[in-house]
Amino acid sequence: MTIAGKQLINGEWVDGRGGTYQAIDPSTGAKLDPVLTMASAEQVTCAVVAAQEASSAFRHASLDKRASFLRACADEIMALGDTLVLRAMAESGLPRVRIEGERGRTCGQLNLFADTVLEGTFLDVRIDTALPDRQPFPRPDLRYMNQAIGPVVVFGASNFPLAFSAAGGDTASAFAAGCPVLVKGHSSHPGTCELVAQAIDKAVKSSGLPAGVFSLLMGSGREVGAALVVAPEVKAVGFTGSFGGGMALVELAAKRKEPIPVFAEMGSINPVVLLPETLAANAEKIAEGFVGSLNMGVGQFCTNPGLVLAIEGEAMNRFINRAADCLAQLPAGVMLNEGIQQAYDKNVVAIASQYGVEKKAIGKDRGDNPGFCGQPTLLTVSAADFIANPELTEEMFGPAALVVKCRDLGEMESAVKGLRGQLTATIHAAEGEMSGYSELIDLLTQRVGRILVNGFPTGVEVCHSMVHSGPFPACTDARFTSVGTAAMNRFLRPVCLQNYPKELLPEPLQDNNPLTIWRLVNGKLSKEML
Amino acid sequence: MTIAGKQLINGEWVDGRGGTYQAIDPSTGAKLDPVLTMASAEQVTCAVVAAQEASSAFRHASLDKRASFLRACADEIMALGDTLVLRAMAESGLPRVRIEGERGRTCGQLNLFADTVLEGTFLDVRIDTALPDRQPFPRPDLRYMNQAIGPVVVFGASNFPLAFSAAGGDTASAFAAGCPVLVKGHSSHPGTCELVAQAIDKAVKSSGLPAGVFSLLMGSGREVGAALVVAPEVKAVGFTGSFGGGMALVELAAKRKEPIPVFAEMGSINPVVLLPETLAANAEKIAEGFVGSLNMGVGQFCTNPGLVLAIEGEAMNRFINRAADCLAQLPAGVMLNEGIQQAYDKNVVAIASQYGVEKKAIGKDRGDNPGFCGQPTLLTVSAADFIANPELTEEMFGPAALVVKCRDLGEMESAVKGLRGQLTATIHAAEGEMSGYSELIDLLTQRVGRILVNGFPTGVEVCHSMVHSGPFPACTDARFTSVGTAAMNRFLRPVCLQNYPKELLPEPLQDNNPLTIWRLVNGKLSKEML
Repeated sequence: MTIAGKQLINGEWVDGRGGTYQAIDPSTGAKLDPVLTMASAEQVTCAVVAAQEASSAFRHASLDKRASFLRACADEIMALGDTLVLRAMAESGLPRVRIEGERGRTCGQLNLFADTVLEGTFLDVRIDTALPDRQPFPRPDLRYMNQAIGPVVVFGASNFPLAFSAAGGDTASAFAAGCPVLVKGHSSHPGTCELVAQAIDKAVKSSGLPAGVFSLLMGSGREVGAALVVAPEVKAVGFTGSFGGGMALVELAAKRKEPIPVFAEMGSINPVVLLPETLAANAEKIAEGFVGSLNMGVGQFCTNPGLVLAIEGEAMNRFINRAADCLAQLPAGVMLNEGIQQAYDKNVVAIASQYGVEKKAIGKDRGDNPGFCGQPTLLTVSAADFIANPELTEEMFGPAALVVKCRDLGEMESAVKGLRGQLTATIHAAEGEMSGYSELIDLLTQRVGRILVNGFPTGVEVCHSMVHSGPFPACTDARFTSVGTAAMNRFLRPVCLQNYPKELLPEPLQDNNPLTIWRLVNGKLSKEML
Repeated sequence: MTIAGKQLINGEWVDGRGGTYQAIDPSTGAKLDPVLTMASAEQVTCAVVAAQEASSAFRHASLDKRASFLRACADEIMALGDTLVLRAMAESGLPRVRIEGERGRTCGQLNLFADTVLEGTFLDVRIDTALPDRQPFPRPDLRYMNQAIGPVVVFGASNFPLAFSAAGGDTASAFAAGCPVLVKGHSSHPGTCELVAQAIDKAVKSSGLPAGVFSLLMGSGREVGAALVVAPEVKAVGFTGSFGGGMALVELAAKRKEPIPVFAEMGSINPVVLLPETLAANAEKIAEGFVGSLNMGVGQFCTNPGLVLAIEGEAMNRFINRAADCLAQLPAGVMLNEGIQQAYDKNVVAIASQYGVEKKAIGKDRGDNPGFCGQPTLLTVSAADFIANPELTEEMFGPAALVVKCRDLGEMESAVKGLRGQLTATIHAAEGEMSGYSELIDLLTQRVGRILVNGFPTGVEVCHSMVHSGPFPACTDARFTSVGTAAMNRFLRPVCLQNYPKELLPEPLQDNNPLTIWRLVNGKLSKEML
């Protein structure tokens, strides 16, 4: 379990031939040992070919085998022990409790996907049996089932060194679908990626799967990332990161001879709407919860609440004042890397300098903290100025939020109409209060993947019912979530077998339903045999 | 029930302000009365705004109401009686039996979608109930459900004046999903479009739905079509037609401020593989069935079998000779319009003039038939020449096929490897014969949406298990079918409600499951109440 700075290609750990670099500890700015290598374009090709060669065997592996492999990945990640936790802490600047929690989430989701694979509903099996005597034409026997689309490229995200990285949600869902995965690890936490890849490599080998099922390639997005996206064998891309990064991949993918989907989650300002009755009763309490959510993980969550909408008045002022007081007490926090911290500072200045924006509070300055620190910031603006200036809907990515002061409900609705797609919207409401705001709620719902009441959007539950997605530009395809078991749907496509020989049908389509899974048989869901 | 050449915009029948034209009877080349109008760009905008305004009410309409509306569409289409049948025959050159059959399919699919709406599984309801005592964090109550994405643009196809047109599969599936539809009718059968739109208009009004739920706009793809695709209110596009037409829409949609998906089905050559044992036993019978499928509808089906692969030998020669004999007896058939006939002639010449291609048979010439006639054509080529020349995989769209003569299985596999995405592949095999060809079958399966055994690909059953889709370039998104009930998935996206007030939950998410639909509750499918 040592970090050697190597690439995992077709089951072999090899030095990359695309140059060297070192990871940086964002809490000190110091380089971390050892020196690491980056993959070359030729090495990318080798990995992609191995993934393609592994595709058929992995696709045809039994659901049992696929589930056991997912569980083995989780077990091997846990077996890395503190080596993994310490390296992830060093590379991310995140505290132990967060890294251990994230490891729990990462392994939990691998195991949840294992359960989901065995349950089998993701296959969406549909059978319409033959009707040989139907007039004017007989109906053939038709059997429909989802199957893996082939090799998937996963871009690790900076902000979740475990849960959205080498063995994160994209990888887990692609494995669950039966797709080989090629990870382009994030250079913010390369050692973490390598350790996790060692764990997956062990799981691949102990499960008897072909080596090409998983590869790790380190290097820049422009070189290694682009080479992966344009490789003809690749069938889809999963990405979490910036709008610019995501759209660059979308363009590359669209220009291929065979265009492929890029499932990019590209950020969000996650509006929080405070309705008057609850605001009057709970302004201070909501303000405290809000600042806690805003500053969680130094604001580096896709679901960070970066926008608050409230109707002007005494209660709104109490909310703003209390939020300002809480925020002013917060220390500057170490951000994930220097680039993120610099972008955050730049984005805050850009928003704060717009017409009508006031700076209500800032957190403590970095003092003598040598790390890449971001200072919490609370801004306000009138709804009129907000509506007039689309720049104010840009994400700051960090612990900064903008409070939009609306004269009335009509202005609040206009402000919401100006919002583009978002991952989440939050409504704070007293009991029974929401029923008076159906138009506002409808406007919000049309713009988001998840709408939550009397809570805060940070903290994305990994379960069957999660939607971590939203209309463009939050995501490239609002029909698919990247968190939760439905994330598998991105990497599946249906194939119909017509009048297929019974003895060659895959298990899920066999008459006697040997896996005892749910199937839509002649329009009725059932676990019965035919 | 007269054809007035008008546009249906926001429930009003109005003259188009984009020019006039007349439909053409392809069996005579004569113009059909009356003179028809085309929509202007401003009229497109009016229709799109009306669709947007209708979106919320239609999305929130009960499943009962949506199902009744779909049935009313079917009833009103039937009520058009022979007026519709005769006009569709005149505009398409297709015989009565085909038009009546297609009308049955069109109404049948509207009714099947009604059943599917009521059954409710398409909503993919998922509920994870709150776990307030869970450590380290409580789990909130999370409820997931598909909802309509908003206005959908449907491009009518030339080759199915009813089943892929104004009230065809795209429209029916979008309605079933709860999306308003804007149809850009095909100029090959504008009167048919108008009559069908009159039927839908009646159904909209009798169902008490907002007028913007359905619009019909006639005109060119470059003007009316493009204006529809770039309208900001539009959320998806359904298209069946040429590769060039489909990709032009994809490009337009990708350049929007909010890119939207274009579900384009762009054709296929639908390979038919003849395995040796069945070929030896049944060469002549397969040849007869093949020629019947090839010439059905004058070859103008997306699933037309345009490519045959067989291993050289006496049996293959018998197949080719019998197919040639059958085909030589066939009359030239009236094609759907002059453009299609001219493109067919050009495509056949282009393929026939490639290196190594031999013309084995042609059907009878048009004689004194005044219509736009296409002559059936059978071509052959060696697998070596086929593999060397990707031009030979281009679709001819008409009653022409190319037989690829393979020296052995290896060459047949190589030929299959050179195929791009297809809607279907067909395998003819004796009992037990397929088990010896797993590699070949896997190669075929990876390239298609439907694989069928001992049949022919024409005749697409509308049912739950149909897949009418395939990897690019057959379709733009192989994850979604355009025929069958799964076609609804194109127009749905999931939304998650977290800790939502019980009294405001939509019916499918309510604790007591008032619609008695299947729901995934804490990971288990169930129709139970919570």
